[in-house]
Amino acid sequence: MTNPEEAIAAPAADAPAAAAKAPKAPKEKKEKPKKEPKAEGDAKKSGGGAAGGDNKGLGLRNSKKDNFGDWYSELVVASELISYYDVSGCYILRPWAYAMWEVVQGWFDQRIKKLGVQNSYFPLFITEDVLNTEKDHVEGFAPEVAWVTKYGNSTMEKPIAIRPTSETVMYPYFSQWIRSHRDLPLRLNQWTNVVRWEFKYPTPFIRSREFLWQEGHTAFATQEEAEREVLDILELYRGVYEDLLAVPVTKGKKSKKEQFAGAFYTTTVEAYIPETGRGIQGATSHCLGQNFSKMFNITYEDDDRQKQHVWQNSWGLTTRSLGVMIMTHADDKGLVLPPRVAPKQVVIIPIPKASTAPEAVQAMLDKVDEMTKALEAAGVRVVTDTRSNYTPGWKYNHWELKGLPLRMELGPKDMDNAAVMTCRRDTGAKEVVPWADVATRIPQLLETIQADMFAAAKARTANCTETCHSWEEFMAALNNKHMALTPWADEEEIEEEVKKKSTTPDAMGAKTLCLPFEAPPLPEGTKCFYSGKPAKNWALWGRSY
Amino acid sequence: MTNPEEAIAAPAADAPAAAAKAPKAPKEKKEKPKKEPKAEGDAKKSGGGAAGGDNKGLGLRNSKKDNFGDWYSELVVASELISYYDVSGCYILRPWAYAMWEVVQGWFDQRIKKLGVQNSYFPLFITEDVLNTEKDHVEGFAPEVAWVTKYGNSTMEKPIAIRPTSETVMYPYFSQWIRSHRDLPLRLNQWTNVVRWEFKYPTPFIRSREFLWQEGHTAFATQEEAEREVLDILELYRGVYEDLLAVPVTKGKKSKKEQFAGAFYTTTVEAYIPETGRGIQGATSHCLGQNFSKMFNITYEDDDRQKQHVWQNSWGLTTRSLGVMIMTHADDKGLVLPPRVAPKQVVIIPIPKASTAPEAVQAMLDKVDEMTKALEAAGVRVVTDTRSNYTPGWKYNHWELKGLPLRMELGPKDMDNAAVMTCRRDTGAKEVVPWADVATRIPQLLETIQADMFAAAKARTANCTETCHSWEEFMAALNNKHMALTPWADEEEIEEEVKKKSTTPDAMGAKTLCLPFEAPPLPEGTKCFYSGKPAKNWALWGRSY
Repeated sequence: MTNPEEAIAAPAADAPAAAAKAPKAPKEKKEKPKKEPKAEGDAKKSGGGAAGGDNKGLGLRNSKKDNFGDWYSELVVASELISYYDVSGCYILRPWAYAMWEVVQGWFDQRIKKLGVQNSYFPLFITEDVLNTEKDHVEGFAPEVAWVTKYGNSTMEKPIAIRPTSETVMYPYFSQWIRSHRDLPLRLNQWTNVVRWEFKYPTPFIRSREFLWQEGHTAFATQEEAEREVLDILELYRGVYEDLLAVPVTKGKKSKKEQFAGAFYTTTVEAYIPETGRGIQGATSHCLGQNFSKMFNITYEDDDRQKQHVWQNSWGLTTRSLGVMIMTHADDKGLVLPPRVAPKQVVIIPIPKASTAPEAVQAMLDKVDEMTKALEAAGVRVVTDTRSNYTPGWKYNHWELKGLPLRMELGPKDMDNAAVMTCRRDTGAKEVVPWADVATRIPQLLETIQADMFAAAKARTANCTETCHSWEEFMAALNNKHMALTPWADEEEIEEEVKKKSTTPDAMGAKTLCLPFEAPPLPEGTKCFYSGKPAKNWALWGRSY
Repeated sequence: MTNPEEAIAAPAADAPAAAAKAPKAPKEKKEKPKKEPKAEGDAKKSGGGAAGGDNKGLGLRNSKKDNFGDWYSELVVASELISYYDVSGCYILRPWAYAMWEVVQGWFDQRIKKLGVQNSYFPLFITEDVLNTEKDHVEGFAPEVAWVTKYGNSTMEKPIAIRPTSETVMYPYFSQWIRSHRDLPLRLNQWTNVVRWEFKYPTPFIRSREFLWQEGHTAFATQEEAEREVLDILELYRGVYEDLLAVPVTKGKKSKKEQFAGAFYTTTVEAYIPETGRGIQGATSHCLGQNFSKMFNITYEDDDRQKQHVWQNSWGLTTRSLGVMIMTHADDKGLVLPPRVAPKQVVIIPIPKASTAPEAVQAMLDKVDEMTKALEAAGVRVVTDTRSNYTPGWKYNHWELKGLPLRMELGPKDMDNAAVMTCRRDTGAKEVVPWADVATRIPQLLETIQADMFAAAKARTANCTETCHSWEEFMAALNNKHMALTPWADEEEIEEEVKKKSTTPDAMGAKTLCLPFEAPPLPEGTKCFYSGKPAKNWALWGRSY
């Protein structure tokens, strides 16, 4: 493979090829929406409707281990999370994906409101002059900005930018609203779409030209308050990944080279995909310092009637988080959803035999109803699959593809035993649960699945992090698809050099993912793995998305 | 006034004039964000900080009765709902406004999910070819479509449209997802921003170039199911207006001339603003029939293996709903928010005297805390104002401007009487509530306020609807700022004629708001008020937004 980025970007056989590959040159291609294969349709053609635990038909053609990129592209379409769209780099979030985004939103929104953040909505458009106010910032975004230049058949006198992020949209108004220290802190958030016309290979959830996110923008009187919030928010981002999505992350600070355009400094939560050996930025919480407040003249009068520039933060979490979760947990049968974010947590499937008498079938259906109500009352999100035109085997495969954490099967033997058979999506482990225990045991099982999924992912990541003190160790780790934790003299030009030198015919160069907050001791005299100069801190390196 | 539309569009003295007025010619003006006066800053300058019930300073300079347009523009800024933005026709929804939109979203979202509708997200962008698929539809929107033609410094090969609505975004994918009757109904919704580059005068909430809405898009096997949903959704829209926003609306069908571009027919809830004598479309629920399914080839195989085109609906509710609520209820002191949508329903203000001993002040503050907790436990949204640097009078004015439904005052006398004084925002009525009754009586009072506000608005609208059988009666009603209910032969060309003929130097022409579902009997032989031909139905006419 000549271009290592294609490892993930290569479209699956059943994804419209043109839509999955972004043009390399800035030349736009008109692509017609193509028919996507439908999981059910496919299954029936290829015999997935046959009875029993037959995994063919609904199963994925590609494997996570052998061809990760194709597997991912196939998976997100087959599990009905995504449809490829006829504007390159844009994707449709279907209900199964959007419902998970709603769970993430609910989790995070509730918590920032408790911190005192308020939601608001600022316009999609920015004038050119305002966008250009902060130089470093605009330089970071300029190549990716989409411009509106026409309406109807008329040409606008000046083009209007579509927000790639909203610092410059909001801060002229912060300068109007903030006068005295009584107007501080000002803590706003919005849940919006943003547009970055990128030319890296687009990948559903992970990198797209339009994406959904929340962006927080806050202003404080003091550096101390601002910095406290940066970490409070970073802790919430850790919570979204680890507590909700069961994805382990490393908290840290970005190097100068990797920080947000215009920031004082950037903090981050970094995740890691073992199969591709690549790190991935999970979410970032930036301290903007006084850079923007000086450019936008955002000041308050302190108690001595002196004008002071405010301290600002901005922080964002995107739909990428769902992509990281999918890559972390899914397998060759389909999605594996952590219970806390799963739109449906349990599927109940009655399994009458052909010989089961009608009254017995009815009793089975009544029991399914009864358990559904009991579980819903216990706060469990349940779906029942009582369709008579699909075999149990087909249903097992279908709900495995959709990633439901737990399956409950109710057959004639279970009816005799006043119990139900459960089967975990993550491990395949089975457990018989007596009817009387359903409302207590199932929620427990879901929490166990959540904890086990996180622990397993955490162990995988830990096994893939190597401490390296030399270039040889460093390259060995990278080539082993691992992350490298190194002593580091923190030099921007050296980081550039490492990136170039670590680029191979098969793989992109490595960069610092972060300078981790939790790291081993760094004894006096420890030397940078690359330059041999005295190390200032530990750096976590990796190839990355 | 030569242009009657300016009645509402004229900017308030303190709103940036250039931003409030849209250019008439398609020539864009660059406008710098201007400093808006701050309610508090103003108040202090003009003596609003003085003690007592003094209403000056924070009060509005304009009056709802005398200069409605200026009053509205001033109100939405002073109450911190809106900031004017430096892209003409776009507005910032500040937290006080956005919190109400969240209440509307919560109310509606929960109910459509119960109906079986699922949320999703489709891209912001549409290719030109797809946008042009349905001819009537694109003709309706073409002049208002904003086009992206550049990214960075490069030109796109083909311009890409920003969605003015998402029929053409979604329906190519409906045709992929729907194969058999088992894929039906398909019922999707999304909460998004849309862009319509209009050149009518923009007005905050009521008409803006970018706005927030929900758009539902559904497909059914049969006309009957589709038509049932059209009315189910219309009933929810009635609920948003009447039950949540306390705004009376008339349900009905749009005339052919006024229906949605590409629809089979459009149903609507229509509100009315007595001060301007204008009707306003509240929300619309369209039956699209098979128009789009034929253009986009959306078919399913029925039980006889015959291909059938699906029946489709689309329906939308926008942030305009908040503007209608504000116009309906607010007064010269500021907003008057119906309790169910108010972000905060009750403000508790302790009123110590200068002579009150420190322990007594503390006891008062403890009681405020205690009542706050009791009310929050009862589900009431409470704010306390214990600031010591503002007078009680200033606080009264401030919270009246913000529209809080109920104020609770706790002074030394109230402490002696183990009670609290309440004051209603809508009527000014006062009532003493013993401490022991706070947690039960306050929620009751809030429900009473909600009901009274709706009843009062309903009576005002009813008083402004006149039944007219002749042109003279019709014009008298209009010129009296009333709506006219007329027998109507339902002729599109006559509707155009009526509009022209009812245009006066001072006022725009009238149009049909809707053909109301509830109307008086129409005896055989009743004649159209205009043409004298046999009437087919009743029509509700008005000048309108």
